Amino acid sequence: MTRPFVARHIGADADAQRVMLDAIGYDDVDALMATAVPASIQVVERETSDLPPAATEAEALAELRMLASQNRAARPMIGLGYYDTLTPSVISRNVLENPSWYTAYTPYQPEISQGRLEALINFQTMVTDLTGLATANASMLDEPTAVVEGMLVARRASRSKSNVFLVDADALPQTRSLLAHRAAAVGIELQVVDLARDGAPDDVDVFGAFMQYPGASGRVWDPTEVIAAVQAQGGLVVAAADLLALTLLRSPGALGADVAVGTTQRFGVPLGFGGPHAGYIAVRAGLERQLPGRLVGVSQDAAGRPAYRLALQTREQHIRREKATSNICTAQVLLAVMAAMYAVYHGADGLRAIATDVARKAEALAERLREYGLSVRHDAFFDTIRVTTPGPAKRVIDRARERGYQLLWVDDATVGVSVDETTTADDLAAVAWSFGLPEGEFLGAGDQGERELRFDEVTPLAGVASALRRDDEYLTHEVFSTHRSETAMMRYLKTLADRDYALDRGMIPLGSCTMKLNAATEMAAVSWPEFSRVHPFAPEADVRGYLALIEQLEVWLAEVTGYDAVSLQPNAGSQGELAGLLAIRGHHRTNGDDERTVCLIPSSAHGTNAASAVLAGMRVVVVACDEAGNVDLDDLHAKIAEHADALAALMITYPSTHGVYEHEVLAITQAVHDAGGQVYVDGANLNALLGFARFGDLGGDVSHLNLHKTFAIPHGGGGPGVGPVAAKAHLAPFLPSHPFQQRADHAGGVFDGGPVSGAPHGSAGILPISWAYMRMMGAEGLRDATAAAVLAANYIAVRLKDHYPVLYAGEGGLVAHECILDLRPLREATGVTVDDVAKRLIDYGFHAPTMSFPVAGTLMVEPTESEDLAEIERFIEAMIAIKAEADRVAAGEWPADDNPLVNAPHTAEAAVVGEWTHPYSRETALYPVHTLVRTKYWPPVRRIDQAYGDRNLVCACPPPEAFA
Amino acid sequence: MTRPFVARHIGADADAQRVMLDAIGYDDVDALMATAVPASIQVVERETSDLPPAATEAEALAELRMLASQNRAARPMIGLGYYDTLTPSVISRNVLENPSWYTAYTPYQPEISQGRLEALINFQTMVTDLTGLATANASMLDEPTAVVEGMLVARRASRSKSNVFLVDADALPQTRSLLAHRAAAVGIELQVVDLARDGAPDDVDVFGAFMQYPGASGRVWDPTEVIAAVQAQGGLVVAAADLLALTLLRSPGALGADVAVGTTQRFGVPLGFGGPHAGYIAVRAGLERQLPGRLVGVSQDAAGRPAYRLALQTREQHIRREKATSNICTAQVLLAVMAAMYAVYHGADGLRAIATDVARKAEALAERLREYGLSVRHDAFFDTIRVTTPGPAKRVIDRARERGYQLLWVDDATVGVSVDETTTADDLAAVAWSFGLPEGEFLGAGDQGERELRFDEVTPLAGVASALRRDDEYLTHEVFSTHRSETAMMRYLKTLADRDYALDRGMIPLGSCTMKLNAATEMAAVSWPEFSRVHPFAPEADVRGYLALIEQLEVWLAEVTGYDAVSLQPNAGSQGELAGLLAIRGHHRTNGDDERTVCLIPSSAHGTNAASAVLAGMRVVVVACDEAGNVDLDDLHAKIAEHADALAALMITYPSTHGVYEHEVLAITQAVHDAGGQVYVDGANLNALLGFARFGDLGGDVSHLNLHKTFAIPHGGGGPGVGPVAAKAHLAPFLPSHPFQQRADHAGGVFDGGPVSGAPHGSAGILPISWAYMRMMGAEGLRDATAAAVLAANYIAVRLKDHYPVLYAGEGGLVAHECILDLRPLREATGVTVDDVAKRLIDYGFHAPTMSFPVAGTLMVEPTESEDLAEIERFIEAMIAIKAEADRVAAGEWPADDNPLVNAPHTAEAAVVGEWTHPYSRETALYPVHTLVRTKYWPPVRRIDQAYGDRNLVCACPPPEAFA
Repeated sequence: MTRPFVARHIGADADAQRVMLDAIGYDDVDALMATAVPASIQVVERETSDLPPAATEAEALAELRMLASQNRAARPMIGLGYYDTLTPSVISRNVLENPSWYTAYTPYQPEISQGRLEALINFQTMVTDLTGLATANASMLDEPTAVVEGMLVARRASRSKSNVFLVDADALPQTRSLLAHRAAAVGIELQVVDLARDGAPDDVDVFGAFMQYPGASGRVWDPTEVIAAVQAQGGLVVAAADLLALTLLRSPGALGADVAVGTTQRFGVPLGFGGPHAGYIAVRAGLERQLPGRLVGVSQDAAGRPAYRLALQTREQHIRREKATSNICTAQVLLAVMAAMYAVYHGADGLRAIATDVARKAEALAERLREYGLSVRHDAFFDTIRVTTPGPAKRVIDRARERGYQLLWVDDATVGVSVDETTTADDLAAVAWSFGLPEGEFLGAGDQGERELRFDEVTPLAGVASALRRDDEYLTHEVFSTHRSETAMMRYLKTLADRDYALDRGMIPLGSCTMKLNAATEMAAVSWPEFSRVHPFAPEADVRGYLALIEQLEVWLAEVTGYDAVSLQPNAGSQGELAGLLAIRGHHRTNGDDERTVCLIPSSAHGTNAASAVLAGMRVVVVACDEAGNVDLDDLHAKIAEHADALAALMITYPSTHGVYEHEVLAITQAVHDAGGQVYVDGANLNALLGFARFGDLGGDVSHLNLHKTFAIPHGGGGPGVGPVAAKAHLAPFLPSHPFQQRADHAGGVFDGGPVSGAPHGSAGILPISWAYMRMMGAEGLRDATAAAVLAANYIAVRLKDHYPVLYAGEGGLVAHECILDLRPLREATGVTVDDVAKRLIDYGFHAPTMSFPVAGTLMVEPTESEDLAEIERFIEAMIAIKAEADRVAAGEWPADDNPLVNAPHTAEAAVVGEWTHPYSRETALYPVHTLVRTKYWPPVRRIDQAYGDRNLVCACPPPEAFA
Repeated sequence: MTRPFVARHIGADADAQRVMLDAIGYDDVDALMATAVPASIQVVERETSDLPPAATEAEALAELRMLASQNRAARPMIGLGYYDTLTPSVISRNVLENPSWYTAYTPYQPEISQGRLEALINFQTMVTDLTGLATANASMLDEPTAVVEGMLVARRASRSKSNVFLVDADALPQTRSLLAHRAAAVGIELQVVDLARDGAPDDVDVFGAFMQYPGASGRVWDPTEVIAAVQAQGGLVVAAADLLALTLLRSPGALGADVAVGTTQRFGVPLGFGGPHAGYIAVRAGLERQLPGRLVGVSQDAAGRPAYRLALQTREQHIRREKATSNICTAQVLLAVMAAMYAVYHGADGLRAIATDVARKAEALAERLREYGLSVRHDAFFDTIRVTTPGPAKRVIDRARERGYQLLWVDDATVGVSVDETTTADDLAAVAWSFGLPEGEFLGAGDQGERELRFDEVTPLAGVASALRRDDEYLTHEVFSTHRSETAMMRYLKTLADRDYALDRGMIPLGSCTMKLNAATEMAAVSWPEFSRVHPFAPEADVRGYLALIEQLEVWLAEVTGYDAVSLQPNAGSQGELAGLLAIRGHHRTNGDDERTVCLIPSSAHGTNAASAVLAGMRVVVVACDEAGNVDLDDLHAKIAEHADALAALMITYPSTHGVYEHEVLAITQAVHDAGGQVYVDGANLNALLGFARFGDLGGDVSHLNLHKTFAIPHGGGGPGVGPVAAKAHLAPFLPSHPFQQRADHAGGVFDGGPVSGAPHGSAGILPISWAYMRMMGAEGLRDATAAAVLAANYIAVRLKDHYPVLYAGEGGLVAHECILDLRPLREATGVTVDDVAKRLIDYGFHAPTMSFPVAGTLMVEPTESEDLAEIERFIEAMIAIKAEADRVAAGEWPADDNPLVNAPHTAEAAVVGEWTHPYSRETALYPVHTLVRTKYWPPVRRIDQAYGDRNLVCACPPPEAFA
């Protein structure tokens, strides 16, 4: 019998756990956990479980194949922002299926992230070039949420004091729905206008306007007048634009738009039933500092060489907290990398050829339908047409389905058809047949050669005015023309991956980010076409496998967290947070408690909590923490009393952001409930709790979870994430809904809270990962993992406490799943900073722990359950050795400004090229411990100057000469 | 429209080709090829082609999915050496689907192959441990051919002069069939005996005996007496043993066998309709130097550190030519790596648990069948039982098929069932039902927990004598116990891959090995279960997709080579050669020309040609070559005349091994035909010919092709290969057949030549790669690729000729697809050797070209069509820079024994650790050209001492302390 998956997932076997337990002084993990986790919150063993017993890897794959087979293989021609696409195999294999890319963390340590940072600079360059704007960020969660961010940029930057935002009636329906939900939360009034037909109303003062280009209907029109009109009154214009169309159409920038947003999905990123995909946002010059999300910029390293890193981080929500203008914490890095590489591989001419082919096919279909007397709504279109049907639209839709095609039902007499790069002549013939055209006459006749000939006779974009045709150059940087062969592309991807440090090299001991194993079996189904080529708005009957998988995952997640209902729609933790807070607001409003808008947030909370509260229309009130980082009960009671009738919610993280199980949690949640408030429990630290306690039992009313932390979805180098929102039954009606949802009813009730993501199930394409994780772990395995994670953290704390003080501990001196090492005394004594230690760890072959969160001057270490004892010992050895190096600085043996710590990380180049002038040897620089000799990670750059890059903001590919 | 695949496969686009053509002085590639390829052999453009027009990548994948769906998903329980297995996903993803592993070349340059050499040492250790013998090689092509090699070892090492080899009647039928075919070719007489029942006959003198352990029937018996008897008369005993069974049964070594052989397929290597899998061979102490194939040994590098490399290479066929004892050129490296990693991941206890589970399931089934009154043939078995059926065996087989199971038809009243690690309780219940047992009572009842309980009551190996139970330790090296978590395994695989240089880093410009792109789309289908989990002896109705794919590929290959029939059975080029020569012998014999046994081979030929001829029972006569490397026509005529009636064949390579299109080829083949001989054209250099000339048109009667050279199957680090044999119609009846072939008739006729591989279609599992390559290239694309390859080789020749003389050229001073750089003058002038240049290329980031073949003191360079101009220029720049370095040695600037060339390759460690005492800088050592700074390959060891390793032969994992 093959070893169970849990033994593959958990790094330390029984012998290793014995060693660790002995060091901490416990007989077994049960005793450890019984002490660590407050008895008052520990779960009672339940007789039954909705989680099936753990499956083997083979069994889980077999079940996934069964679920996959229940999705009907249909060709989606629905459009609305989602298009089938051809992912180049070289990109699938070497990025999407390569742990060197998908197991990397967010590039907070830029020296060991140059590969994906370069890929993201390519992404930003691609977006700015195609949109004709000055600066793009490193991706957004999806298009509709990018539109919201664009609206917020407009509000901040507008001269107008108006509260009104104009919305194009021809915007994507899901965008309109999400905009309405999000605008209402922050008090923005939307006004919907058919801008193409009616222009901007001149009697309304607006702070901005949003338009879709091309429109949801496919229409291509000239918005220059509307843009000018809005800007004339001080408003900003946000345009959602299709990047593929922009290879042929005038760019938003050239048309005068201030902000462009959209999705890059059709650039080789599989549909995945809605995601994950990389959205984008770009702004004109002058708005750079208004950009939400992650922005990659060029700076320089200690040798003065160009080096990439995240720019303008002080804008971000974890710094600005409730003053933040966005709660977006992350990007869709893995997908942005794929989209960027799609552009790198095809280049400008390749993309133009694809777009021309798409436009020609759409035109051919329209011509054919018109020849047969059908009316095609607009003359000017790119890839999408709206057709007036001879009979009921449904009949056409049904005929198409019969042949395996999904078309868009627009209204009783209108059907939408969208063409994409995968559409063939046979597809068009079948679609034409669905509209009642005779089979076999059109395009389908003859052999392939002849069929292609027919296409050549059609003029693409025939109805588009020449003023709207693109005539400027784009993607002219050499990166977009030097990787055209698969060999060159494969090597480029390998070269970039080689620069980066991911989980496939060694541990990434990030406090609160839970960089656990992302097992290959969990990842397998993501690549299967039955899951990857599914449109998010496909009819229910075509996606039964997906819906079954999603329902199971919802039920399992509800069970392990003690909630009644779970929505998987939020496509990031921040969005889950927002959805949870919006549910709380919805609940209060339904009860007539409109005035309940105060959100209590402990001072130790992650900054995103506060930012999300603001975006949910709440007012943040900070609750003090005691010196141990726990909520100060007295202050809590005082704040509750102070805000009494205005109290909406308390947000807490459990275990706390300090990595401790607060013993007073039940008293805290009780106090909030007693005052009529709701309790939001942040799920970031769920990995310390699963199987031992449940948020619902702690008094939580709603939580977001992080499937990319606790449930094995890989971090992808900084995204995708999935942030389900889980709630008690009374909040279930306010959980996310969606205008295109296949079902409104879930295991926990009917959800009707409005959308927080572009797709009904958010990033559904990666849900098989968490499904497989839970399926293979079972309830017992999840519990074992929790205990193993807590054991490992406590072992590190015990082993390192004589070298670095460990901040905060709970009962028995125990920490939860992470421990905070206090480096402030070290700095005091030696001048060596947290940064120096973090960068020196790179020389030792490690990714640094979390720096200066939640406490400045500290490192927070979370080994997770997946690291084995050998790797943990290696880390401990490195930390102790670094302490000894710092002691030599303190002893004056090495000067404070020239020692292996301040100069870290060391590149091979710096160590061998030219003179060596440092007071320590080259060997000390590069090989501080001999076990590194056989396996050494080589950072590609030296320490990066963060400030330089912010002072000299460059966010597009630098010219090749810069690297000379 | 997306770019056609041919533009992704060929590295140089039109602009780059223009640059190269200008340098060579041709207007276009047509003009170049018209000059290079003799007009007399150029193909006339044909009106029609059996090759369909080139498909896009998406179209090819869609067709492959269609073919895949035509294979019926059935669970094979046929056994006979092929078992379904669970490939750990971490191994599939990180080895089988990772170009860092599969695009590597054979580890002839050990300094840049330490990763896979370590994996192969693990393989050898695994085999020696489990077989209880002293030394194992780095894998064989499959089990039946390994048995042949074992027989040949026995013949060489036996004291007996007998010509008789005893064969166990309970050996695998395909092994017996292949043994018969191969023994007949070399004049060995086989005597088949039921050894378990009758013992060794004491009246026959034998040089050896072969037994299957456990037997094909599943029987486990004690062979010690038989072994003693054979050895007493000076014979050697070869045992084919199942490695999984050996985790529980006494090892062949402990039983006294001299040689053990077998397959490692069931160690996580997918069935793949027969292959590729890694066979194995192990020998007792004293027989090491008799081992055929590749042997990895431990030696040391220039720093005295342990380092791996191929040992005892002087044994190999390319050195010993017609004196070679085996024609095996390669191993199944990629599959051996997978099998070794399966053992590393499971460890001794894990393997024992799997084996115990398998044995228990077999026992449970047997018990159940006996309870119902059925007779199970043997009491002692491991995983396979033979059952006497109540009615006709076929009825049981059909009932099983109906439920999705494939059982083995043994005879009219006997069915065989084999259990493997994938077999479930439900499977056993269904099989029992097939034998007429009532459904639902047995095992299938109750939930999973209960069913497992039933297994626990069964005693595995109940009928096996305790003397045959294994009681010694195995896999005790720490590598088999330190990678148990998936995280640890993933990192181990990454660490090893990082040490190696494969195509994903840069060009591997090997003359005659054609390291072209292995496209991700081509590789995709290899991983699909519809192709990977198919038993080679499955009934025809279950494998229609495979058979259709194979037939198409046969037809296409026949067309492009000008032959009438193609067999895909040979699983390596050497086996294709042998099959072709055996076909020639069969042809002569059928014509009554038994005496035609002389095989003419030019002196420039690859050594394998001669070795294969000997193994086909031929006598090698060498034909001289002129100074240009062409066949000396005068000597050819003389040799033909001399051997007149004995002439069997001429083997030539075209273009020649010197990389030149010989103009006299038609005269040569005509002369052989006129004398009644057959012409064998070696297909190694087909990449210089496809689309421009065809072997069949040159006068070839038969050829082998190398799908792993010309048709894009990756080299896998030293295997798998596929070596189809292609022939004119008159030889088709002598092409390979197989006792379990689904069809004897092929597009080119009925094949009846006897087997050369364990499976009817050899390494069928990787044929989708070549299928996809041809499908996506089309006839025109293949022709374009040839021209691009020839253009690139000529460009390199022109650019380098002023620095290194180019040996051999044809018309217009042109070479074919490779060029030979003469380094002998350099050595004369500077003392710098071919080795020095090859190793120095590593410092520059390149894999060396082929060294000293076909001419000692030269480098043969084949850039292939897949390299782009940038990479070719980088190589040229490196070669010129190295020449300049050599000139400095010649000028006395650097001593002959201390310069960057003789010290190459340089490790980072050597450059930074300790004192630097060389007359050149560390920078010169590591970064000779500045463009390497951003992307540097780091060799893990310094120059390896080859002789040391052969003097001190160690072929198993060294203890960890060795690396301290």
